[in-house]
This record gives sequence, C-alpha cells and structure tokens, in this order.
Amino acid sequence: MSTEDSCVTIHMAASLDGFIARQDGSVDWLETADQYAGGETLSPEFIENFLNSIDCYVMGSHTYETALRFEAQGMGWSYGDKSVFVLTRRELPRTRATIEFHAGDLAAFVNDTLRPRFRKIWIAGGGAVCTECLRLGVADEVSLTVLPVLIGSGIRYFDHFANDIALHLADVKAYQSGMVEMRYEILKN
Amino acid sequence: MSTEDSCVTIHMAASLDGFIARQDGSVDWLETADQYAGGETLSPEFIENFLNSIDCYVMGSHTYETALRFEAQGMGWSYGDKSVFVLTRRELPRTRATIEFHAGDLAAFVNDTLRPRFRKIWIAGGGAVCTECLRLGVADEVSLTVLPVLIGSGIRYFDHFANDIALHLADVKAYQSGMVEMRYEILKN
Repeated sequence: MSTEDSCVTIHMAASLDGFIARQDGSVDWLETADQYAGGETLSPEFIENFLNSIDCYVMGSHTYETALRFEAQGMGWSYGDKSVFVLTRRELPRTRATIEFHAGDLAAFVNDTLRPRFRKIWIAGGGAVCTECLRLGVADEVSLTVLPVLIGSGIRYFDHFANDIALHLADVKAYQSGMVEMRYEILKN
Repeated sequence: MSTEDSCVTIHMAASLDGFIARQDGSVDWLETADQYAGGETLSPEFIENFLNSIDCYVMGSHTYETALRFEAQGMGWSYGDKSVFVLTRRELPRTRATIEFHAGDLAAFVNDTLRPRFRKIWIAGGGAVCTECLRLGVADEVSLTVLPVLIGSGIRYFDHFANDIALHLADVKAYQSGMVEMRYEILKN
C-alpha cells in the first residue's frame, strides 16, 4: 500500500462546551437521553461497517487506561481486533495481542511506520495526543462529535497551539441521539 | 405581550477549538475562505429576515467595545435599530439612542424587564455574560456557530460552571461558507 492512500483522522467526542472528560477523567455524561427527530439513526450495521472501516487506533496512555477501565467494568473493548498503538513511556498492562506501546518521535511513527501499513488511522485521544498531531502536521482530518450537554469544566480536546489551522468542512451529520458529527479536512499551509 | 412568549437565546460564533476571540479580543479569523458544497446559502434576504426576527440584544461591555471598534473601522453597526442592552458598571460611550446600559441583578433584568417587553432576546456575548445566563437559568436556548478554523488559544465561549446542563438538539444547519450552526433548547432540571 502506498503512504498516499492513508488518512489520519483525529476523532473526539465532546460536550458542547468543549470537554472530552471531566477533570477526574470520567465520561459518564456521554450517555444522554436526547431525541432529535430529524437525525439519522445509528443502526448496529452502520456502526459495524464504520468500525470495520478503521484500520488502526492511536491513543495516549490516559485514553488507554480509560478503555481498560471500561472493559474491567464489563462495557467491553471498543477497538475490536484492530491494532491499538498506545503512546507512552510508562509501563502499562498489555491485555491483548493487538496492543502495542510506542515512545519517541510521533511524526516519524505516524508517517514512516503507520501510514505504509494502515489506510484509515484513527487518533482516538486524548487532548495532548490530538494537539501534538495538529502541531506536527501529521493529521489529515478532524472529526468532532458534539453531545447535547454542557458539563461546565473538565479536560479540553485540544491544548493550546501557536498558529491558526485552516479547515475545510467535509461533512456534517446529526443523529437521533442528539449528537452532531462534524468532519473537517486539515488544510496544509 | 406575555412573558411566556419570550425566548432568550445565547448566541456565539466560535472556532472549532472553542474560542470566540483571540486573547487580545480580535476576531479576524471569523472571515474564512471555506466552501462547503452541500451547505445552505446565506442570501441577503435570509440574513435580513433573520436579523428582523431578533427583538433586542444583550451583551457584555467587551462585546460592546468590539462592536464600537468595528463601527469605527467602517464595518457598520451589526444591530440595526434594535435595542441593545450593555451590561456594565463602567462609563462607556453611548453612540446611539438604541443603546442602554444596565448594572445589577441580571436574572431580574432579563425576567422582569426584558421578557415582558421583547419576544426574541439575543444574548450576544461574551463568555462571562453567556456563562452567567446559564448559571442563573435565564436562557432558553444556546445557538453555536462553528467556523472551520482552529486558532489554538483565546477567549472561551463559556467560563466554568458547577453543574451539568442537559440540552435538546433543536436544529443543525451547515452553510456554504463552511459554518455549522447548532441550536439547542436548554432543559430545565
């Protein structure tokens, strides 16, 4: 596969006030009771096809620990049998063969290791990893899912960075659950 | 007119990373060059009808000063002949008869003074005023327009507040300019 075929997407789900988690990392507010009549339904088939289209996940250590906690609480493993690359210098439990740990140059890892091997590369968070991908210019897309709730405080999806990044709106979808998904291409300056 | 007919909307335009202005207050990034083919057009008639539907504006002193600066720079006055209520304890220039200043209890002002007089009440910013309206529970709706740009740092549209606020997605619109407008009803607990 050629590197040009690959697409690196930063994906986040956030409250309308821009938080991906409460200050203690909890994401209980991701379950909302909203009903938006005009929205699309997320059928099990749609979700399965969508998840099948993702070829690998990249995440920071806190996001990985949240995923492990979800699994320990009986909520399952969100990433199926896809490769999951955890960016960390810490020693963390490796609970399945699909998980690999990586430390070091993120741009080289994404461009030289992941892009030649995977087509649809999904940056699953958290804020520090997403911001670093923006800073380094290694991402092609940003996908933000906004939930119909304000949580008042917490962890932001992007840390600060220095320069404007122009985007191109590629798609907007509203779902019956009241979630709005916006997908943007990152314009390279 | 009965108070029940009135609707208080918090309206903000923000970058995708959740800033309503740069740290110095500038909003030059509101002009983006994006083209979203699937989007609606904002015809002059549409904009005129929309602006005509707003009955009064409420804003903080910094937002007012930004509006004055725009006008001084030849960009016109954004609020037509509608009443503009500026929340401030400072002495500020009053450049037209439609402008009134208010200091003191915001909830009483909105509920007892504005709601009986105006139907569509528009909270035009900034972050402190919008947050205070949320905290006090005086707003009925939040309308957020997201621009296709990341600016990395600046002034947030909401300050922190203590409790979750559940929302109901009422409408989503994407425009040819790449702007996405999300309108939510604020659910009263």
